[in-house]
Amino acid sequence: MLARVSSTPTFRRLPRAVREQQMLDAAVKVFSRRGYHAASMDEIADDAGISKPMVYAYLGTKEELFIACLHREGTRMMQAIAGAVAPDLSADERLWRSLRAFLGFVGAHRDGWAVLYRQARGEQPFAGEIAAMRSRMVEIVAGMLAHTLRAECREVAETELEVVAYALVGATESVADWLVDHPEADPEQTATRVMNVAWVGAAQLLAGTSWHPPTSQGEAPPDAPSAG
Amino acid sequence: MLARVSSTPTFRRLPRAVREQQMLDAAVKVFSRRGYHAASMDEIADDAGISKPMVYAYLGTKEELFIACLHREGTRMMQAIAGAVAPDLSADERLWRSLRAFLGFVGAHRDGWAVLYRQARGEQPFAGEIAAMRSRMVEIVAGMLAHTLRAECREVAETELEVVAYALVGATESVADWLVDHPEADPEQTATRVMNVAWVGAAQLLAGTSWHPPTSQGEAPPDAPSAG
Repeated sequence: MLARVSSTPTFRRLPRAVREQQMLDAAVKVFSRRGYHAASMDEIADDAGISKPMVYAYLGTKEELFIACLHREGTRMMQAIAGAVAPDLSADERLWRSLRAFLGFVGAHRDGWAVLYRQARGEQPFAGEIAAMRSRMVEIVAGMLAHTLRAECREVAETELEVVAYALVGATESVADWLVDHPEADPEQTATRVMNVAWVGAAQLLAGTSWHPPTSQGEAPPDAPSAG
Repeated sequence: MLARVSSTPTFRRLPRAVREQQMLDAAVKVFSRRGYHAASMDEIADDAGISKPMVYAYLGTKEELFIACLHREGTRMMQAIAGAVAPDLSADERLWRSLRAFLGFVGAHRDGWAVLYRQARGEQPFAGEIAAMRSRMVEIVAGMLAHTLRAECREVAETELEVVAYALVGATESVADWLVDHPEADPEQTATRVMNVAWVGAAQLLAGTSWHPPTSQGEAPPDAPSAG
């Protein structure tokens, strides 16, 4: 292969897409380290080895740059999950693989994605983006549950599925938060714990075995599972 | 009983505590209706039938007033939960009553507490307050699980309990969010659904029956619960 000779310096020859990725890498690093408010465009430009006006020209304002980071990291996370599952697997295996991929991603990106996610959740212009991602996850989970039920010719009210999906996604999100704060915790073991809490119950519910509130004060119904 | 006659107008005779509650009532209403940023101290003073300087004198800046609202409503919520449980009940009954009290409170305060909570979660100065409330809830749930286990002379690693508590609280929080957006949903029925998903699994886990990841690709272990 022949190397192409050019009179322009090396940094000029990088394609736009590569430049953008370098800027996003630098931005994720600086936002994670400093927080959204304290992060400066100077430091981001510096870290990317690029001039500040060029960062603005390529990716816009600090707010737009933060959203671009959020999208790139969020897309990577979704791809990690999508790559881990296959439609022919059973519902519990699909959920297990999704959970393992998700918590594995969170565990591997404790300093990047996780921090961005927390900042976005706590900041008004970005909270909507996070809510949208969460809704997509809920839809995917509800869709997976519906698919499982259809395959077994069983009917469960859509509301039921939606609530189950919200509970699963909420449980996972909460545990992911815990994982970020516990660098010593193993993501795979943590995923197993979530399966134990969230899936075991959901599976029983979908199978028609369900917990019922006690019929009278202090009295448990015969089919209520207990910790004993 | 003799009515006491006074020459000062009625509004002057209100004790400070009553005044403060009136202002907080007005503030919760206005913050919920307008959102934190758009809410004006003029409207809050107006609604409370009090002068704006008096609102500032009693409860401080808009930020301090919002935190005061959050604390009052949060305390009411915690009291609603505490009032619903008794220490001699079984773990599942305590969890059930807590869930029912919590989702009942959220359902009854869709326009008040729920909106404040969402605003606080999405705003930097208040996100810490919400995180602190969540941590308290996680501690309470983990404590309840530990208590149940001790009563049965069983040992489960503290990390395990913490992850289970995070999952339960996260699932409940997520479902509460769903409830706020579904005014037609019944809080008690919703609480039953959370019990089904979250508790059934947690109870099995605490009882020593647990889900294990498949040992080889695509193969489910013999004791894995399935939806079928």
